[in-house]
Amino acid sequence: MAYRNSIMTSPLPSRPATAVLLAAGLGTRMKSSRPKAMQRLAGRPMLAHLIANAADVFDRLVVVIGPEMEDVAELAAPYPVVVQHERLGTAHAALQAEAYFGEGDVAVLYADNPLISAETLNRLLEERRSPDVGLALLAMRPKEPGRYGRVVAQDGNVDRIVEWADATSEERAIDLCNAGVLCADADTFRTWLKAVKNENAKGEYYLTDVVDLAVADGVRVRAVEAAEDELRGINSRVELAEAEAALQNRLRTKAMENGVTLVAPETVFLCADTELEPDVLVEPHVVFGPGVTVRSGAEIRAFSHLEGCEVQANALIGPYARLRPGADIGVGAHIGNFVEVKNTTVGDGAKANHLTYLGDADIGARTNVGAGTITCNYDGFFKHRTLIGDNVFVGSNAILVAPVSIGTNAMIAAGSTITKDVPENALAFGRSRQVSKPELGRHFKETLKARKENG
Amino acid sequence: MAYRNSIMTSPLPSRPATAVLLAAGLGTRMKSSRPKAMQRLAGRPMLAHLIANAADVFDRLVVVIGPEMEDVAELAAPYPVVVQHERLGTAHAALQAEAYFGEGDVAVLYADNPLISAETLNRLLEERRSPDVGLALLAMRPKEPGRYGRVVAQDGNVDRIVEWADATSEERAIDLCNAGVLCADADTFRTWLKAVKNENAKGEYYLTDVVDLAVADGVRVRAVEAAEDELRGINSRVELAEAEAALQNRLRTKAMENGVTLVAPETVFLCADTELEPDVLVEPHVVFGPGVTVRSGAEIRAFSHLEGCEVQANALIGPYARLRPGADIGVGAHIGNFVEVKNTTVGDGAKANHLTYLGDADIGARTNVGAGTITCNYDGFFKHRTLIGDNVFVGSNAILVAPVSIGTNAMIAAGSTITKDVPENALAFGRSRQVSKPELGRHFKETLKARKENG
Amino acid sequence: MAYRNSIMTSPLPSRPATAVLLAAGLGTRMKSSRPKAMQRLAGRPMLAHLIANAADVFDRLVVVIGPEMEDVAELAAPYPVVVQHERLGTAHAALQAEAYFGEGDVAVLYADNPLISAETLNRLLEERRSPDVGLALLAMRPKEPGRYGRVVAQDGNVDRIVEWADATSEERAIDLCNAGVLCADADTFRTWLKAVKNENAKGEYYLTDVVDLAVADGVRVRAVEAAEDELRGINSRVELAEAEAALQNRLRTKAMENGVTLVAPETVFLCADTELEPDVLVEPHVVFGPGVTVRSGAEIRAFSHLEGCEVQANALIGPYARLRPGADIGVGAHIGNFVEVKNTTVGDGAKANHLTYLGDADIGARTNVGAGTITCNYDGFFKHRTLIGDNVFVGSNAILVAPVSIGTNAMIAAGSTITKDVPENALAFGRSRQVSKPELGRHFKETLKARKENG
Repeated sequence: MAYRNSIMTSPLPSRPATAVLLAAGLGTRMKSSRPKAMQRLAGRPMLAHLIANAADVFDRLVVVIGPEMEDVAELAAPYPVVVQHERLGTAHAALQAEAYFGEGDVAVLYADNPLISAETLNRLLEERRSPDVGLALLAMRPKEPGRYGRVVAQDGNVDRIVEWADATSEERAIDLCNAGVLCADADTFRTWLKAVKNENAKGEYYLTDVVDLAVADGVRVRAVEAAEDELRGINSRVELAEAEAALQNRLRTKAMENGVTLVAPETVFLCADTELEPDVLVEPHVVFGPGVTVRSGAEIRAFSHLEGCEVQANALIGPYARLRPGADIGVGAHIGNFVEVKNTTVGDGAKANHLTYLGDADIGARTNVGAGTITCNYDGFFKHRTLIGDNVFVGSNAILVAPVSIGTNAMIAAGSTITKDVPENALAFGRSRQVSKPELGRHFKETLKARKENG
Repeated sequence: MAYRNSIMTSPLPSRPATAVLLAAGLGTRMKSSRPKAMQRLAGRPMLAHLIANAADVFDRLVVVIGPEMEDVAELAAPYPVVVQHERLGTAHAALQAEAYFGEGDVAVLYADNPLISAETLNRLLEERRSPDVGLALLAMRPKEPGRYGRVVAQDGNVDRIVEWADATSEERAIDLCNAGVLCADADTFRTWLKAVKNENAKGEYYLTDVVDLAVADGVRVRAVEAAEDELRGINSRVELAEAEAALQNRLRTKAMENGVTLVAPETVFLCADTELEPDVLVEPHVVFGPGVTVRSGAEIRAFSHLEGCEVQANALIGPYARLRPGADIGVGAHIGNFVEVKNTTVGDGAKANHLTYLGDADIGARTNVGAGTITCNYDGFFKHRTLIGDNVFVGSNAILVAPVSIGTNAMIAAGSTITKDVPENALAFGRSRQVSKPELGRHFKETLKARKENG
Repeated sequence: MAYRNSIMTSPLPSRPATAVLLAAGLGTRMKSSRPKAMQRLAGRPMLAHLIANAADVFDRLVVVIGPEMEDVAELAAPYPVVVQHERLGTAHAALQAEAYFGEGDVAVLYADNPLISAETLNRLLEERRSPDVGLALLAMRPKEPGRYGRVVAQDGNVDRIVEWADATSEERAIDLCNAGVLCADADTFRTWLKAVKNENAKGEYYLTDVVDLAVADGVRVRAVEAAEDELRGINSRVELAEAEAALQNRLRTKAMENGVTLVAPETVFLCADTELEPDVLVEPHVVFGPGVTVRSGAEIRAFSHLEGCEVQANALIGPYARLRPGADIGVGAHIGNFVEVKNTTVGDGAKANHLTYLGDADIGARTNVGAGTITCNYDGFFKHRTLIGDNVFVGSNAILVAPVSIGTNAMIAAGSTITKDVPENALAFGRSRQVSKPELGRHFKETLKARKENG
């Protein structure tokens, strides 16, 4: 087979590349009132994953959204969006973005296919720019090829795509499947997109038809293979969960290979940006939200939940510790059970081990925060800070009404409400004297008991 | 093969049907002191599952229990129970219930086979009522047929059941296995049951022998196939866990198909009656007990535990929130970490975000409940209610001693014990004034330190 | 094939046996700064597992460590350690311990192969002591034999070990793999170890070469087969997680076979010493640390965490209960959500259901501990005890400053700080009187709101 030689097949190292991201899909099969692109994977909308990977490879991005999808447009910013007002098929959707095709190459990607890696996108672009290649597409060999369109190809040279419904039984036996992602020279792509017809059962313009047009033009079409995990589409909540599981397994293996002990990896949930240094130990049942760094030697015990925080070396977190954004836990510090820390620095060697809320505070080194301590950081309108010095002993169930500051070496008596600053070395009280009334306990009990017995 | 035509094979649409539920089994292989029927699956005794499904299909239910199984009888109520005083086999057990057979059809079911669906029971009954059919039985094709009895049948017409121990190697190669469930006309069934002999190694009367008797009578016996998941018996705790896992997977898939995002379905536990609307998002590690409804747009964050409660649209629950029976969380309300809510309504947009216990309370709209707040609802004998109006600001670590009511727009100072009603717009205090003693903190510390160093 | 008959093949029932445990490996492939032997499995260093199993079978243990591995030596105590100063291979490492070989048999084991069972070690030793056998080794048939050395043997008689790199394709097709563990007469073993050469690519002395030396000496070499789960080495964090999973599955199955209901076994983590009696029920998401006993009929609800504690019959623990070392929970007692118990006995039928910290306390029978109660057991230097009698009612948010004791039948008013002993039957108060300031709540709010609006 001889291919037509054209300018679009001569690679230029500096040739620009544009990614068209199709994100106009509704959440129909998701049974959602939200656009499909907004469904979350690893804590982020699917489209955010795709944008992050595409931005690594392409010079320009443009996102095609549906009508009334302001939230998608907002997520896409600062990348431009175009609105596909009528849903007339993928070729039609891609063509809405033609004003942004520019020069160079254009690839069409899908918001419901968000786990495609930058490495795969690079291979697609390189293949497209290989000598004589006019169109490159992505293909996979799924474990269960099911109703995917089949790629009829020899040694990666694509002859045609055959839809499952139209395929003969021999064609259905082909295990190479079309992932729908295409890449071609901008001008040629535009020409093909405009040539696509809608003479089919649904009356839609299908992007896949571009392959036939390219072959008909005598252009060499190449299939670039990638893993099913990257290429399979996410059309339902079940598929969303499967994609999440695949993603989590990748993140867990990467963490372990990096020297982290995950005692029960299948019960630990990570984010793409979770940074765990070697010799961190993570017990079962731990959830990491975005923006977490944990330094070497720290232990994250069971049932802990961390987001947007930093845990320094050898700190001990949990069980049942919740670190929220802005928590910075010092070297060797301890954050114990049923303790929440938000927007707070905890000094080296400091401890807050039981039933405590530390919000908008700075805790000094080696300070001990007693059980049940609460920083009152909010007055209903404003947030205020609590400052606690080094070596302070905060007694149990203390209430620190911010703004307030406790000096170095000070002590707070258990059960005190602290509303004024405490000087260093001082002992602060704010509680009532105890009174015991003999026999009154028994009396109360007997009265209540009698009342209960009499109904 | 010609089948005897008899009145019992003419179907009557209004023909009544009775289910005999065999629940006399001990928990021997479960190593339990409780009857097998009481072992729990998805939070309910196995027998409760069977009763629920059977009651959907049969007009009458009767439960056969063993001696001293009052708890099983109580669970079976209002359905009648009969006691099998001696354990002489399944045919003997079924016969104990003959007084309840009534007219129409009788099916024999098993408490240790509780996941059989109403749909399967209906198919069994319909098959039994098909022209010429005298006996219908349930069969399955298990992945590992092991030592199940094999069903020798052609096109669903059963020739005989052969026990594994007696089977030839060809018969063992049959993959259709007997599930033990039979359905026949009441009178005929009674006759067969009485004809069963106990001439076998254990000296027991086996229900399976009814099949041979029916065939010997020239009656047409039909096998109705159903999934292994429904039909496999639960005889050990390992099998109980396997059944639970199968059940959970069904519930999770159903939820996702209904438009719910389960980020990590394998870590979320549901009940048969859990109602999650589309666009509910459930993070990893969440447990739903019975009686939970969550409305669209609500998020249930990690490590939350919900039972008998209702969560309105767009509410944010958890992480580490526990909603107990009678909790009703308003539209857009927040229930945060280490917060327990019981028998309490929380108004729209209200917040209780940290370390709080709300029991027997009504919280108004947009009210903010501070960290560490506790409703004292119990005096050791009686439970009392706490009423909090709209737009109230409850300071941290407040104690609300019920019965007590806080008016709209009121404020409660942090650390206050509130025992009397607070009028609307008022500010209530109930705490001591703070006193700081200079140098006393250091003095205490030094004294203690010296004492420690001197042993 | 005729084997040389020698004194080392005559079994003596009282013949002593020594295990040489190789633990000098660095954590290189673990990407750890800690020795490999210290990596934890089921909460204990790998070497601790191996020592426990080997001590069941061998009379003497000696551990070979690397330089600067004081922590490993400490863990090995009271067993002697020898230091391998240069890492010259496994034969070299074993030879460092020759001074401890003594009389009788010597087996060489590996710290990164810690799950080998006492039963397997016994079979190894017995095989070695069978008539005519001069060397016994352990072998397995892994699912994926990969690059393991292959054991060329007939009926268990070993001809040679062939390394994967040197193996022909036929040899690679052998599925019997070398686990590296050898056992021989002490003196003969020493002679062979000294005869091993380092003429190989890495210039190391390989223990495996002993097999060739034995065969060359005309000694009968026997392969003892054991499960892959026991014999596979743990060289990476991924393999560590796989070993942990295998171990957990064994423990879970054992618990269920013993009559324990694990609702979702895959979410429950056990220790080798966890004792759960029949009819204990464990909900999903529970973690057991070392030293836990739970008696019959007790329920451990979701999200609970237990270590070093005892739970008596029919007690109800959790959800979200944390029992720490020294917690002893009485018959039918309740420990509820967000409650931590440490070094504390809780009497029969007592309850502590919400947001409570009980440390270093004794709680009487039928005593009710209110929500938010905290024992102040620590003054920064010393721990003190809190004693609470039977039938006491502790109101919510009480603070008990230890050392302190509360008499039988006493009541503590909600919100009280208790610093002095309370006599039996008394009612103790330690809180302020409530004051309500009309309109001040609204005033504060308006002031704050105005300030916020004005920036």
